[in-house]
Amino acid sequence: MRGIVVAVSTDRSLAADVFARDCATRPVLQAVTGRWGALVLVALASGTHRFSELRRRVDGISERMLSQTLHKLERDGLVRRDVQTTIPPHVEYSLTDLGRRITTPLAALIELVEQSLPEIAEAQVAYDAEH
Amino acid sequence: MRGIVVAVSTDRSLAADVFARDCATRPVLQAVTGRWGALVLVALASGTHRFSELRRRVDGISERMLSQTLHKLERDGLVRRDVQTTIPPHVEYSLTDLGRRITTPLAALIELVEQSLPEIAEAQVAYDAEH
Repeated sequence: MRGIVVAVSTDRSLAADVFARDCATRPVLQAVTGRWGALVLVALASGTHRFSELRRRVDGISERMLSQTLHKLERDGLVRRDVQTTIPPHVEYSLTDLGRRITTPLAALIELVEQSLPEIAEAQVAYDAEH
Repeated sequence: MRGIVVAVSTDRSLAADVFARDCATRPVLQAVTGRWGALVLVALASGTHRFSELRRRVDGISERMLSQTLHKLERDGLVRRDVQTTIPPHVEYSLTDLGRRITTPLAALIELVEQSLPEIAEAQVAYDAEH
């Protein structure tokens, strides 16, 4: 996999702009907000978890998908993978500092969507009645 | 399309839980944070836009994708579609109150990911060197 190429510059016009087609923000945003990434990050916000614990917490995720999601988040520097040298070895996952910073607005977004569900459901009924 | 079925209850144990496989929060979260939904919402945060303006702003989106994204966001009650009775008629899109509330943490998340890109790029380089 290739790393992100970012031009670091003090010129604001060269800063990351998610609206630009090739902006490196887009794939990261996808990893963070994608179907599973968001749920794994928010699950880890409550503390360190083992793989099997995460699998139970994020209801419906397959072993393969959880593994892929964790690798992607680890590669982006959002999740830390710690191997305990016990017998058998335990693998534990936790948020990095960066992961914690990014998970804060993400968790706020998810909570707001949860709270807004009745309002959204009403909007859907009204829309479907008209279309 | 079927509307969301939500059991509205004061019993907290029955509240929306995004970790539950069948929770109605998941598809809405997908619409909001999906590849294009997030960009369209954040573009509309700066004010009312016509279709063609949105298409230019969200670089890389196809006409068909923008149209689908707008319909989904309108159905969820996040975006309002106003047809001006001019000749030719103009169609304008804007955020609803709910859309504005949800776009606030979303925009914060996107800004944070943009700011964190150099740090994320470093993490990727380190990860790739080890794997």
